Amino acid sequence: MAEEMMNNKQIILKHYVEGYPKESDMEFKNSIIKLNVQQGSNVVVLKNIYLSCDPYMRNRMSKLEGSYIQSFTPGYPITGYGVSKVLKYGDSNFQEGDLVWGMNGWEEYSIVTTTQRMPGVTAYAGFYEVCSPKKGETVFVSAASGAVGQLVGQFAKMLGCYVVGSAGKKQKVDMLKTKFGFDEAFNYKEEQDLDAALKRYFPDGIDIYFENVGGKMLDAVLVNMKLHGRIAVCGMISQYNLDKTEGVHNLFCLIAKRIRMEGFLVFDYYHLYPKYLEMIIPQIKAGNIVYVEDIAEGFESAPSALVGLFSGLNVGKQVVMISCE
Amino acid sequence: MAEEMMNNKQIILKHYVEGYPKESDMEFKNSIIKLNVQQGSNVVVLKNIYLSCDPYMRNRMSKLEGSYIQSFTPGYPITGYGVSKVLKYGDSNFQEGDLVWGMNGWEEYSIVTTTQRMPGVTAYAGFYEVCSPKKGETVFVSAASGAVGQLVGQFAKMLGCYVVGSAGKKQKVDMLKTKFGFDEAFNYKEEQDLDAALKRYFPDGIDIYFENVGGKMLDAVLVNMKLHGRIAVCGMISQYNLDKTEGVHNLFCLIAKRIRMEGFLVFDYYHLYPKYLEMIIPQIKAGNIVYVEDIAEGFESAPSALVGLFSGLNVGKQVVMISCE
Repeated sequence: MAEEMMNNKQIILKHYVEGYPKESDMEFKNSIIKLNVQQGSNVVVLKNIYLSCDPYMRNRMSKLEGSYIQSFTPGYPITGYGVSKVLKYGDSNFQEGDLVWGMNGWEEYSIVTTTQRMPGVTAYAGFYEVCSPKKGETVFVSAASGAVGQLVGQFAKMLGCYVVGSAGKKQKVDMLKTKFGFDEAFNYKEEQDLDAALKRYFPDGIDIYFENVGGKMLDAVLVNMKLHGRIAVCGMISQYNLDKTEGVHNLFCLIAKRIRMEGFLVFDYYHLYPKYLEMIIPQIKAGNIVYVEDIAEGFESAPSALVGLFSGLNVGKQVVMISCE
Repeated sequence: MAEEMMNNKQIILKHYVEGYPKESDMEFKNSIIKLNVQQGSNVVVLKNIYLSCDPYMRNRMSKLEGSYIQSFTPGYPITGYGVSKVLKYGDSNFQEGDLVWGMNGWEEYSIVTTTQRMPGVTAYAGFYEVCSPKKGETVFVSAASGAVGQLVGQFAKMLGCYVVGSAGKKQKVDMLKTKFGFDEAFNYKEEQDLDAALKRYFPDGIDIYFENVGGKMLDAVLVNMKLHGRIAVCGMISQYNLDKTEGVHNLFCLIAKRIRMEGFLVFDYYHLYPKYLEMIIPQIKAGNIVYVEDIAEGFESAPSALVGLFSGLNVGKQVVMISCE
């Protein structure tokens, strides 16, 4: 069988990253990929269409030991979630032209043997499974215009909760109220005193905090939680680029207010994916759930899109469209 | 009816306390108490026999706002749990000489209208209800020789867990192994590196942490927790006397390891008291559960006994015997 070869541009992590990631921590590389696939194998060749930029990827840029996830390997392509089109397939479950998604390399073409799942489920599992929400409760979401936050806020509104979100840019704050239907929203960068800001929006306290940022915001939230409140810890993006994380000082509130604070990862909730789709698809079709994506165009824009995530440049879920097909 | 009067020595909080409490923050006062009780009322006159010294009392010495518990009132007696004997009763549920316990003033005689519940249940509810323990799991208890810790360790052993405790004095550490049957114990004051100490005793990590101390120990525990570990937050005694609490830096572990960290107070579990007694009494009689009390003698010793708690002078549950009757 003649070997079919293709040029395959890749984005390589040059070295482990300290502090905020920079575009220069990555480099482009031209490689060659063989497209031959043995029929009956479970190998599929994909043309990648969208790359997803997500905060957890920052952790993978550091040298991690015993973490829940592996570090990227310097000298090799970054990997992440993405949407792809099937080019060649050894597995008869696939056909040419099928759209699939999963964890792939940041490259034009990928050869994979399995497929995996994507975000959305994070918001679904985190809110419904970890927060134990009830109608009428008060909900605070930080990084609320992000990929997960925007969905959590809408789920909470659908359930009849009072929902407030924080973000770091006027455009995002406006969007929370006008686009996603949050009851209130504020720009945390404009607040001298986060405690006072939370007291303004939650005079009687917070039942549920969906935590995406960590640090000072968490400290301010702790003193504003209600008795028997719940904190779902989804992310701590404000801490990922610090050499030494900020200390959290108000954990005694966990006792005084009998708060449950629980970390979670979407990996543990993949079994809910069919249930999630069953719920979300009709809601999206009916226009009850909306989403905002920030689409960077072209493979070359991927490093800057990823780096921008950590200074909040993205408005909504950051993706990179690397192919129109 | 002739009024019956008695001298009633009391221990008064002089002022709100900052930093470590001192004996001089309290003072003795001679007052007079009227012993008359109207038959058919729900009033009971008690002669106090034991006073209980507990870490949560430190919080009540500060000026608290919106806390789970009220501050003591400067100029009035300190209050706390205690065991008392009924002297006079308006309520026919009581007889002279009955031993009762509940929340009373630190004074020789108290006039009360209700009775409440005592510690022990804290260990019971915290371990069985909050920790979700399973046979064979690894359990770490800080302040392990204290009133709550010594029981938690024994409950965990009864269930077939591997149990390690920490304490701050050789005598206490020895007692954990020889008296309470902990598998291992260590003196946290002799460890340069708490992380290394925990790795020595938990090479495969900790399933359950029963948190009594907070601060640096919590930070070291977080990095040594296993996936899906549970932290029951019962107290943070290392932080109670600090003007500014230590920051906790490793909360990202909650996400990476999907840890549930839950604060609790015994108030929420009083309904379990009958179930607790049903379990604990036969175990104590059979010698399966033991306890160590540190009994200070005489009303005059109460302030020093309370103050000593915060530098770990007590060995076991600290009580003050103020009467032999």
